[in-house]
Amino acid sequence: MGISGIHPGTRNEIGISAMAAALKKRFADRFQTGQAIRAQHSHTTTWVPSQLPDGVVFVESTDDVKAIVRLAAEHEVPLIPFGVGSSLEGQVNAPSGGFSLDFSRMNKVLSVNPEDLDCIVEPGITREELNAYLRDTGLFFPIDPGANATIGGMASTRASGTNAVRYGTMKDNVLAVTAVTADGEEIRTARRARKSSAGYDLTRLLVGAEGTLGILTSVTLRLQGIPEEIAGGYCNFPTLKQASEAVIMTIQLGIPVARIELLNTPQVKACNAYSKLDLPEMPSLFLEFHGSPASVALQSEAFREIAAENGSSGFTWTRNPEERAKLWKARHDVYWSAKALRAGGTVISTDVCVPISRLADCVTETERDIEEHGLLGPIVGHAGDGNFHVSLVIDDKIPAEIAAAEAFIARLNERALAMDGTCTGEHGIGQGKQEFLEGELGGSVGIMRQIKRALDPKNIFNPGKIFALD
Amino acid sequence: MGISGIHPGTRNEIGISAMAAALKKRFADRFQTGQAIRAQHSHTTTWVPSQLPDGVVFVESTDDVKAIVRLAAEHEVPLIPFGVGSSLEGQVNAPSGGFSLDFSRMNKVLSVNPEDLDCIVEPGITREELNAYLRDTGLFFPIDPGANATIGGMASTRASGTNAVRYGTMKDNVLAVTAVTADGEEIRTARRARKSSAGYDLTRLLVGAEGTLGILTSVTLRLQGIPEEIAGGYCNFPTLKQASEAVIMTIQLGIPVARIELLNTPQVKACNAYSKLDLPEMPSLFLEFHGSPASVALQSEAFREIAAENGSSGFTWTRNPEERAKLWKARHDVYWSAKALRAGGTVISTDVCVPISRLADCVTETERDIEEHGLLGPIVGHAGDGNFHVSLVIDDKIPAEIAAAEAFIARLNERALAMDGTCTGEHGIGQGKQEFLEGELGGSVGIMRQIKRALDPKNIFNPGKIFALD
Repeated sequence: MGISGIHPGTRNEIGISAMAAALKKRFADRFQTGQAIRAQHSHTTTWVPSQLPDGVVFVESTDDVKAIVRLAAEHEVPLIPFGVGSSLEGQVNAPSGGFSLDFSRMNKVLSVNPEDLDCIVEPGITREELNAYLRDTGLFFPIDPGANATIGGMASTRASGTNAVRYGTMKDNVLAVTAVTADGEEIRTARRARKSSAGYDLTRLLVGAEGTLGILTSVTLRLQGIPEEIAGGYCNFPTLKQASEAVIMTIQLGIPVARIELLNTPQVKACNAYSKLDLPEMPSLFLEFHGSPASVALQSEAFREIAAENGSSGFTWTRNPEERAKLWKARHDVYWSAKALRAGGTVISTDVCVPISRLADCVTETERDIEEHGLLGPIVGHAGDGNFHVSLVIDDKIPAEIAAAEAFIARLNERALAMDGTCTGEHGIGQGKQEFLEGELGGSVGIMRQIKRALDPKNIFNPGKIFALD
Repeated sequence: MGISGIHPGTRNEIGISAMAAALKKRFADRFQTGQAIRAQHSHTTTWVPSQLPDGVVFVESTDDVKAIVRLAAEHEVPLIPFGVGSSLEGQVNAPSGGFSLDFSRMNKVLSVNPEDLDCIVEPGITREELNAYLRDTGLFFPIDPGANATIGGMASTRASGTNAVRYGTMKDNVLAVTAVTADGEEIRTARRARKSSAGYDLTRLLVGAEGTLGILTSVTLRLQGIPEEIAGGYCNFPTLKQASEAVIMTIQLGIPVARIELLNTPQVKACNAYSKLDLPEMPSLFLEFHGSPASVALQSEAFREIAAENGSSGFTWTRNPEERAKLWKARHDVYWSAKALRAGGTVISTDVCVPISRLADCVTETERDIEEHGLLGPIVGHAGDGNFHVSLVIDDKIPAEIAAAEAFIARLNERALAMDGTCTGEHGIGQGKQEFLEGELGGSVGIMRQIKRALDPKNIFNPGKIFALD
């Protein structure tokens, strides 16, 4: 993590003042500079300290975005796009000041094409708003990072979540974007065809760029048919290793499991306490299957055999929507279950991702680390992807606890990299993971900097995120 | 297409001579300059005229590639990576001269990780070599563009093929690459984790870059378990529209069909004649299902209902490997079936891709165009992706026929773009599709040029491909 990794930034005071005046003139009440609203727009959901923007513009159209980018280029002032502020690594902070672009009013569905299973949306729509809109079409957008994030934010951090094991991540589900680039013009990165070999894949360059290369103005998404049947269940194993072996076999056999989540024993205990469940307090998998009733039956039967083969004492499953909802509500509430472990505690949610063959080792070593250092940190993972989260619970008013958490996170990332993994499976680099990026990707970071300099020569797009330029 | 679109290039004679001498010194017999070998390395499988490199280096290691890139940077001379020469849009031509890097000796499997379903290979291995190597592991690499292309070439053109509908394209199946960049150093774009949010997605920037941003030295691939059962079949429909509706319903219902290929009536006739089949001469679908026996049975039963609902007179299917192989051999031989339609004919294989809701319209209008202009061009499509090929058969010694083919291809691409499609679903831009790229992606092409200039300031990597720089 590293508060140490956070670039202090240098402020262009003259440019910021001049641009604030120009924004006031053009946007009137849609430009806000009050302390509370600025603080809200640098809210980081975690312990990364807030760095407030100098003001917030509520954008309503691509023309608004173009005008703001042109002003920013003229005055050389940073722009920070803002969705709902659910990012976890300081992505919405303003280390060099500048202006936050609030996309909450650019939240329209622009078109839905049921035959092509796609839609075009403005970036400010949240995934729940989108799915509510889509319900009558029989389609849904599957990516579910837990938080009710915006599509623009999810695209920008290359988000994924519990059902990426079946439906992929944002990289797989964004077909095209439009974005305003440094010259203040809008580009469209791809047509609506399902695939293309036409030139560089700018779609996937912008997905995961955390707003550092341009500002998204629309996103074309791949949709899925709502499954005829959804069934879920859980099972527990004597060891993490056995749970993990069951996951590997499931993936190897090509069972199209929709979600397969691993909870370690402390996490199961936390869920039992917070969500009033009585799950056996052992390493557990939560599962979900999507498909026709016959296909779901086949999938869960195949999984039951795998679980038994790997020492599970039984697989409890249900087609009852309420029971299923209760289980997944508990899964989605792991943040709160961790927070409830300690009165006044702050949760630091951090993620790494390793090849699935190393998942059990990585989680087991991390459990040992937590124990040895007397930390509190239940673990939950998107096991089918080898991606897991530690919810560290600390008192962030005690410097020694912050230091201990930082040291733990550094060890966690080194461990993941030593296993050929990544320092972030789905949260992004932002400010918090910068110190690990070079160790992970070496010379590739130099190539990223070259791209950044070429596409954003004045460094106006979310500067100080992913990497420092100097 | 457009031979008109082919940049003549300017040659750096002094640099080329100096570099040839340096290559001779370092590589001795592994550097070849004979006419025949140079001609073979600019073979383009289609009518794009050959532009020969000045020599061919048979590379054997990353160190070889680094040394060559450093020489090319020093002398400002073009480098053109070469796999087997199965690309279709002039990707291996040398419009400004320079040197071809033959990767046939860099064809090793570097590692296979069965638990993680991935492997790392050198770029010169062909997909058939890889699948032969993998057979005993129970895994396979699914992407099948028809030709026995190299993995490096397939990555570079963002290839896909018949089973992309289930397994995705190269963009979905390349987890990471290593590449030598313009400074002569090797970068690795990602670790072996299944997903990552760590910085810009350089993997997908290099996939599809046609060798214009760096030279691949290894490719990490996602693998699949060999399905327990594979079943295939075909069915025919009174109209293309009905065949296409059946495809749309199949995709909408989430049936995980592994291949679903559309053949128009002229293509079915050509297959019957060439491959000695007696398929009803109507618009047809060829299908393949992968999975457990129970899952395959479910899938094909579900498809049978869909086919009937859309007016098919019946769905003939088989689990017999020989019958299935015969059918798919015919599908893979469509190039030869087209060639056989006319003695001495040359086949121009061109591809476009549209949203699947427009596939029937696009194919039907294209059929009408072919008929109105008295052309010969059966059509086959990867219907689940909206991607189709026309195999134009012409006599390329008759200028009027070339002109007619060029005009047809221009109309075909305009039609696809008007339907929000792309000028190439899987062949790439190379030289042949350059004139359509700007119309498809507008200002995005300017962004691509900025990236090219930033990462390859001396324009040594496959210059003149995808777009001209000036």
